[in-house]
Amino acid sequence: MGTDKLRIEKASEIGLCFGVKRAIGIVEKVAHERGSIETLGALAHNQQVVEKLAAIGVKVAKDIDDICGDTVAISSHGVSPKAEEAIRARHINIIDTTCPSVRRAQIAAQRLAKSGFFVVVYGDADHIEVKGVLGWADGKGIATLDENFMAKLDHLPRRLGILSQTTQIPAHFTEFVKRLVDSTLTKDAELHIIDTICHSTRKRQASAIKLAKKADLMLVIGSHTSANTNRLTELCAGVTETHLVETAEEIQSSWLEDRKYIGITAGASTGEQTINEVLARLEALAKGL
Amino acid sequence: MGTDKLRIEKASEIGLCFGVKRAIGIVEKVAHERGSIETLGALAHNQQVVEKLAAIGVKVAKDIDDICGDTVAISSHGVSPKAEEAIRARHINIIDTTCPSVRRAQIAAQRLAKSGFFVVVYGDADHIEVKGVLGWADGKGIATLDENFMAKLDHLPRRLGILSQTTQIPAHFTEFVKRLVDSTLTKDAELHIIDTICHSTRKRQASAIKLAKKADLMLVIGSHTSANTNRLTELCAGVTETHLVETAEEIQSSWLEDRKYIGITAGASTGEQTINEVLARLEALAKGL
Repeated sequence: MGTDKLRIEKASEIGLCFGVKRAIGIVEKVAHERGSIETLGALAHNQQVVEKLAAIGVKVAKDIDDICGDTVAISSHGVSPKAEEAIRARHINIIDTTCPSVRRAQIAAQRLAKSGFFVVVYGDADHIEVKGVLGWADGKGIATLDENFMAKLDHLPRRLGILSQTTQIPAHFTEFVKRLVDSTLTKDAELHIIDTICHSTRKRQASAIKLAKKADLMLVIGSHTSANTNRLTELCAGVTETHLVETAEEIQSSWLEDRKYIGITAGASTGEQTINEVLARLEALAKGL
Repeated sequence: MGTDKLRIEKASEIGLCFGVKRAIGIVEKVAHERGSIETLGALAHNQQVVEKLAAIGVKVAKDIDDICGDTVAISSHGVSPKAEEAIRARHINIIDTTCPSVRRAQIAAQRLAKSGFFVVVYGDADHIEVKGVLGWADGKGIATLDENFMAKLDHLPRRLGILSQTTQIPAHFTEFVKRLVDSTLTKDAELHIIDTICHSTRKRQASAIKLAKKADLMLVIGSHTSANTNRLTELCAGVTETHLVETAEEIQSSWLEDRKYIGITAGASTGEQTINEVLARLEALAKGL
């Protein structure tokens, strides 16, 4: 790939992750069998994927009140047990596409809460996956990215159970945990840490950083609201100039001036088609330089 | 306390700790009732305490084979369940003076091992308390002060349960835990840390350091083989010139030359009499300066 002037290289780990692929596969099959299916929220945080699914009869219900039919698919991000109950209370069937890595985090949160730990989910409190995982702690916890969260609690829990949103940056989670060790480890204190960052996130981040170290420009393809895409952008930006683009149209030709080596990576919800469109536009722009 | 030339001050937390006092009280009561009693190993790591107890009929059995009578007292350092079994198998009754803080560490080790954790006891592998605590992990663990111990293991455990000898330095334990977080926290890894350093150790160390910061010489009174006494010496030596003495006789008059402020602290097994003897000798030497 590339022109005489410019080398363009994809990261070795790119495209839809296992969990998103699996969720799309399940929903496509049901849509094929039934003609249509609703998903609770977008199946993936990616407009292109959502539009492709819409074309085969997959509709998005904004929330539980918005569900019209008798069956709804839960996305790979998962939901809390309370949300599941609320759906079942309306006699709506659930097709569960929760990613196995997210499920592990949910089970970890439940196990820690049941054992008497105050559960700390290292992650974005507004993110659907994090809300779901925290829901499994049955109200006995908090989701935060702020290592000083303890200062805001009414009482200091003696036993802290710590896990992570599956798409966080491992080194940041480790730093967060070390700060908690420093600030909370005292007589009889207990810290139970479970590293729930998924394998796919680790591999994707590692390959993105490896490429960013060689490139003089990185493009991260994905939704501006996707958690894992934003983490990729953050990591690459620490190494070289980096732009997040959701579609090929967002690429500005000025970014390519005087570049020799452009690296491409993409979020876990970014389809192959979008990646190919970005590559095609880069090739076209490169020819025009 | 002190002369015109020299100020001598005791640390605010000094003398026998709760656990050792409790053990001595139990054994003294039994010796009084029965005329004599054996202890498995020395009741406290302090020759003066052992001699005082010997005078009222308390004998030291070196090991289980060395027990002559039908009853033996386990020291405040505790023993492993296997050692207890071995004693009971010989139809010898046990008087258990295990310190409640050590018992908590033993229960923590047992709980972690039963939950499938590889137990890491941060402590001196040759110390009687540490051997006992590790025994409660039923062979599923290691005792070490070396944060690189993982490199020597045949296989890397995914789940690590970490606790501490009750008399270690809290800041050192925290540092050890942070190194383990750095080196072991990866996909699905679990770290369950229980801070089993006792309250008495924390208070004694804090008051020793506070005093050492003001003094130009620190004397730490206690056995050269006592774990907590050695930790106190280590801490004070990081602040000012420090000597460990077991008895008043060990004080060298040359240490006192040009001193203005001498601080005194003592290990958890050091009796009041020994502390008073050290103070008396210091006063006497100070007058001669």
